[in-house]
Amino acid sequence: MLGSTGSVGQQSLDVIRRAPGMFRVVALAAGNNCAELAKQVAEFRPRYVYAERRSAALDDALVHVGGAFVPMEEMAVAAETDLLLVSTAGAAGLMPTLKALEVGRPVAIANKEVLVMAGNLVRQAMLSGGGELRPVDSEHSAIWQCLWGEDGHGIRRILLTASGGAFRDFDEQQLSSVTAEQALNHPTWKMGRKITVDSASLMNKGMETIEATWLFDVPMEKVEVVLHRESIVHSLVEFSDGSVKAQLGVPDMRLPIQLALAYPNRMATPPAPALDLAAIGSLHFGRVDMARFPCLRLAMEAGNRGGTYPAVMAAADEVAVERFLGGEIRFVDIAAVIESALEQHSPTSDPSLEAVLAADAEGRRNGLRTPTGAAV
Amino acid sequence: MLGSTGSVGQQSLDVIRRAPGMFRVVALAAGNNCAELAKQVAEFRPRYVYAERRSAALDDALVHVGGAFVPMEEMAVAAETDLLLVSTAGAAGLMPTLKALEVGRPVAIANKEVLVMAGNLVRQAMLSGGGELRPVDSEHSAIWQCLWGEDGHGIRRILLTASGGAFRDFDEQQLSSVTAEQALNHPTWKMGRKITVDSASLMNKGMETIEATWLFDVPMEKVEVVLHRESIVHSLVEFSDGSVKAQLGVPDMRLPIQLALAYPNRMATPPAPALDLAAIGSLHFGRVDMARFPCLRLAMEAGNRGGTYPAVMAAADEVAVERFLGGEIRFVDIAAVIESALEQHSPTSDPSLEAVLAADAEGRRNGLRTPTGAAV
Repeated sequence: MLGSTGSVGQQSLDVIRRAPGMFRVVALAAGNNCAELAKQVAEFRPRYVYAERRSAALDDALVHVGGAFVPMEEMAVAAETDLLLVSTAGAAGLMPTLKALEVGRPVAIANKEVLVMAGNLVRQAMLSGGGELRPVDSEHSAIWQCLWGEDGHGIRRILLTASGGAFRDFDEQQLSSVTAEQALNHPTWKMGRKITVDSASLMNKGMETIEATWLFDVPMEKVEVVLHRESIVHSLVEFSDGSVKAQLGVPDMRLPIQLALAYPNRMATPPAPALDLAAIGSLHFGRVDMARFPCLRLAMEAGNRGGTYPAVMAAADEVAVERFLGGEIRFVDIAAVIESALEQHSPTSDPSLEAVLAADAEGRRNGLRTPTGAAV
Repeated sequence: MLGSTGSVGQQSLDVIRRAPGMFRVVALAAGNNCAELAKQVAEFRPRYVYAERRSAALDDALVHVGGAFVPMEEMAVAAETDLLLVSTAGAAGLMPTLKALEVGRPVAIANKEVLVMAGNLVRQAMLSGGGELRPVDSEHSAIWQCLWGEDGHGIRRILLTASGGAFRDFDEQQLSSVTAEQALNHPTWKMGRKITVDSASLMNKGMETIEATWLFDVPMEKVEVVLHRESIVHSLVEFSDGSVKAQLGVPDMRLPIQLALAYPNRMATPPAPALDLAAIGSLHFGRVDMARFPCLRLAMEAGNRGGTYPAVMAAADEVAVERFLGGEIRFVDIAAVIESALEQHSPTSDPSLEAVLAADAEGRRNGLRTPTGAAV
């Protein structure tokens, strides 16, 4: 499990905790949250641990359970692992994902950037190594479930639902002055800071459209976004005959997590109360206003153009979101920063890992620039 | 194709007409509508024809295409047929369905009474002969599609959606004086007279709960009915982990029909415009008021008790609906007639064909009685 101290990582460990005897945690990797990782090591007794930072408590915990520090790439291919869960943020999950797929290991993927940056490489690794990708995002998990037993060639449209984020009903005037605190207040899902801001800008949804093209092998023109504020219908697939399938549920990340862990089985332990449609009463759907949410348009365009464009976009977004959270640029400047980075980019098609990493570095550099018209 | 001149039969022929070269109509069977059948014979040139009544035009058409009159049971097992579509009304479809399943032939089933009366026999014939049932009803087709690629043991609930019929918002006072004309005015679906009245009383939905238990091998306690007035979500399945899958579409019977005909393929010819959820805006769900719709309660109770109860219920309903349409009893008396017939019945469990047919005859006899309190 890579990214064990993040939101998805902690919820994944909760799934494992609630199913005693079903899973064994072989490896845990985290970033800077040594205190939480030390607790997880003590509880789940992994053989392998990785952390960007070390602490005395973490070292003690690891000695106590007889584990060893190893790099994430080694965890990904360790003989004792049956499944790699990648719930890191950013580019850190890319190399372990590729390594695991290359040796034919299934990867449960909760990391958006991996597929957005390097979907072509991930797909190549999966096809050459015989591994499989299991989506953990609720939207992609929904699509995945709708596709079981179906012929993938019969997909006519993938309909990703979007709650609309914290600013769904804000007009352009209001959007120009929103604060980081407002952006971090997502109406439905409790998530990390970066993804919550990306949800408010709909960049998160835009990245999901790109992910969907790689996960389900469809071109961007078959992917649409539909506004659905209740977050009950997690996404839909329309087939060649006009039939539409949807997956629904009470919003709880532990449901897609446990499905990715237990696949092809469904665990008999629902993480949340049963869905009561009669009590909910009505489900709403609408169109997304691309003018108010330019990040969605930018992401779908980058996905449609392909090559290194999505890597530049994701990197520029990561920097721009940090700058917004730090009070350096406005919320509406995030899109301007990304658009500027994309405009300056000379793309490479079907990029190598080196080209992807160069595009990532370029996007980060250009994400630091101040676009024309931005108030700083 | 049994029941070719009925609503489902005609729509099935429309599906076949719109897919030139894909299907060949080997046999057509109908009841009394000789004029329509003669036209169908001239257009589709079947080898075998059955009709309850004959006419000179029908005989001429049959001679012209070189076909022959044969009984429906023979059609069901004719070597040239790959699939039997049973869209007859009432008990007429039972014997051909059993015969086809016994020789391992797939049966696309649009006839409710067959499964309601004799679900145990149909299931036995299917299991012993290796045939398969493909549901044609939009609700059961939805459930079927949601179950593709799933483990049937993982079903926790089947949620049948109900539009609520013509009298969804009527109170008990209003229900006591509704006319046949009102009952025949269904809000969504264009169907035959009997099924439209059954939709208004929710007996149709009740029969669907019984069908679902046989089609998907689940006990009645796993089947629920949820009110959904738009008829866009055709039904849902909740799995052991709490995940819910649904099938949606513009209401058009040709979609489930063509899926049953083309299975395991989905035809690339949608019979209706694409579903536009954003244009629809909202989907509503609610609970069914069993007090106002006692036929639903009676059917679910009969299905839960099993044995010959459902056969008695279906037969009594058929007679009661005829009496209502003939102006002999009130709409609310339909339930009273059925309840009385069920009360008088001494059931047989896991009934033989003879026991089922005896229960059917008994239900028809007792359906002619006038229940206590009925205004006639």
